Amino acid sequence: MDRIYLDNNATTLVDPLVTEAMAPFHSRLYGNVNSLHSFGTEIHPYMRIAIDRLYRGINASDDSTILLNSCATEGNNTVIKSVYFSEILPGRGDHIITSQIEHPAVSKTLAFLETLGVRVSYLPVDSRGIVAPASLKEAIEPGKTVLVSIMWANNETGLINPVKELARISRDAGVLFHTDAVQAIGKILVDVQDVPVDFLTFSAHKFHGPKGVGGLYLRGDLKIVPLLHGGEQMADLRSGTINTPGLIGMGMAMEMAVNNLDLENTQVRELRDRLEDGILSIPGTQVIGDRELRTPNTILVSFRGIEGEAFLWDLNQRGIAASTGSACASESLEANPTFQAIGIDQDLAHTGVRFSLSRFTTPEEIDYTIDAVQKIVARLRSISSTV
Amino acid sequence: MDRIYLDNNATTLVDPLVTEAMAPFHSRLYGNVNSLHSFGTEIHPYMRIAIDRLYRGINASDDSTILLNSCATEGNNTVIKSVYFSEILPGRGDHIITSQIEHPAVSKTLAFLETLGVRVSYLPVDSRGIVAPASLKEAIEPGKTVLVSIMWANNETGLINPVKELARISRDAGVLFHTDAVQAIGKILVDVQDVPVDFLTFSAHKFHGPKGVGGLYLRGDLKIVPLLHGGEQMADLRSGTINTPGLIGMGMAMEMAVNNLDLENTQVRELRDRLEDGILSIPGTQVIGDRELRTPNTILVSFRGIEGEAFLWDLNQRGIAASTGSACASESLEANPTFQAIGIDQDLAHTGVRFSLSRFTTPEEIDYTIDAVQKIVARLRSISSTV
Repeated sequence: MDRIYLDNNATTLVDPLVTEAMAPFHSRLYGNVNSLHSFGTEIHPYMRIAIDRLYRGINASDDSTILLNSCATEGNNTVIKSVYFSEILPGRGDHIITSQIEHPAVSKTLAFLETLGVRVSYLPVDSRGIVAPASLKEAIEPGKTVLVSIMWANNETGLINPVKELARISRDAGVLFHTDAVQAIGKILVDVQDVPVDFLTFSAHKFHGPKGVGGLYLRGDLKIVPLLHGGEQMADLRSGTINTPGLIGMGMAMEMAVNNLDLENTQVRELRDRLEDGILSIPGTQVIGDRELRTPNTILVSFRGIEGEAFLWDLNQRGIAASTGSACASESLEANPTFQAIGIDQDLAHTGVRFSLSRFTTPEEIDYTIDAVQKIVARLRSISSTV
Repeated sequence: MDRIYLDNNATTLVDPLVTEAMAPFHSRLYGNVNSLHSFGTEIHPYMRIAIDRLYRGINASDDSTILLNSCATEGNNTVIKSVYFSEILPGRGDHIITSQIEHPAVSKTLAFLETLGVRVSYLPVDSRGIVAPASLKEAIEPGKTVLVSIMWANNETGLINPVKELARISRDAGVLFHTDAVQAIGKILVDVQDVPVDFLTFSAHKFHGPKGVGGLYLRGDLKIVPLLHGGEQMADLRSGTINTPGLIGMGMAMEMAVNNLDLENTQVRELRDRLEDGILSIPGTQVIGDRELRTPNTILVSFRGIEGEAFLWDLNQRGIAASTGSACASESLEANPTFQAIGIDQDLAHTGVRFSLSRFTTPEEIDYTIDAVQKIVARLRSISSTV
């Protein structure tokens, strides 16, 4: 059997159709879309199709904006630093609310703002591993809170936050709401007309698109203070020569991601559940979070008495790629707020192994993986002193 | 004859060898380089080669840093905003020096800082169209000036600033020096050990590499305040999943750009001079700046009594792509500081047409272009009332 890739929350295979769609823009169609001559203008129709696909993908209304950028890290930094310059520096508030389980692109950006005097509240997750709307309501300080930033789905656990309620609470309080939807797009329905977010960030390489390109949705006529000042691209809101192949690829990937949502929630979910059942049949294992609350492709599992790194090493030797939950550095595992909140047994909290599937995952791969996991657990426990 | 592309200062054809080098990373080699399993680690050797090529390309020493990012606009914003946060906000100075001829990625970023109270001095160009070192010396305010940002070569005119002297003056005064080298790389020698810049920005798509990827050089152990906070990529200085195909392509493009510098200064320069001679043989034309002071591929020319847009329209109809100098918006031509400084005839200043060649430009294309320019000038002057 070929190698097996079960680390799709880190990055994904670029869909072969996406690669094919991008190819001409790496060679023949190389013009700068801002040029007035034919090398520039001939790209416009393709660009329009790609942008339309992005709008349809998240059901953005025509009056809203989707800024093309280089990745979700850029999008997250853009929103948070924009609010710093437009609201906090002029004294219109000094408080931002986020959760304890954000990706570093949000949490480290906020930590940076803290060094500049911004106050940040980090909402905990509840015993289900998600952010409770009531905790947001309580944390908002009228006249002080200028932004709420809470991810749609968590990268480590796959747990889905109640973004619709969280966004409504923010809106009712007159506070801007941002969500990092990197782990939601292509896995669950993301509809920005149904869920009243003000800002939403995504990254193509998480849904079988190319690396180095992402998007930032801005509701209605919302503007931002640009993170990248410069030329007049993107109505002056995000400067820099348009990455045409990236845009074309992201558009195609977005369309396919949305078209494949059913598949994600049937085939991928079934394979994920099969893997989960197989793992849970091994004694001393625990999966973090209810299945129904998670994206259909993700499992974060703990194995009693086994270190995550040792486990992943063995897994890799057998040709299977998975990862530790990214924030689960071995020495600071106890600090993982989801593990704590869910009340996981301390003995189990020494390892977090994340399996994340995709529509390219096959039943054969899952069966092979279940077998491998059983063998690895047996081997590592046989040489471990902590069991 | 096929269409002719003479707008290489806007963007360039991706070299077919670059496209070929990138291909596997769009498909087979899709792992995240930060992953510990084989899908991640198998990319490291390729990545190392690409990074080595970047270091060699600008002769960066081993103790320096080259941050991968999305474009030179990002690099320029990173440097300027970093200095704002690290120097200006804590009160270690409030003054930045730049030139009147910078790309918007620098000038608009500085204009933004001006809204925050930063003082910016805009050095004029002298009668040769370049920044005089003496003017920099005069403008530095000891204890107040925290950054000098002056481009290596100008995008519109191709004129090359005396960066070595400018950087030395800054260094002697203890002021950080940044240069936007976007229009220099691949056209003239760029050696950061010979020219003591502290920060240097470049963009792959200007030297036959892919769009959406660029680099920021940091001298020695200089650090920056990140523009993109987040994951631990690039030693925490530029977060976001590494754009592997972009990096591989930029590395290959950099190596080829440097290997082809001789060609640029023989073949490309000869073709440029041939085109220039052909244009100057038409009465009422003027080229901006001395040939010897310009990058070997660039001409900015004015035609008496002809509007740039009308000229470019005709040129495009004949299959030739060129552009107005990017800041030469028709209504604000008089404000172009280079035109003013060089003392160009007001009658000529109504049009600026930029031709920018590349190593893919052929003698046949140049001869065809000279012929086309002569015919277009004759036609437009015959219908123009201002001649």
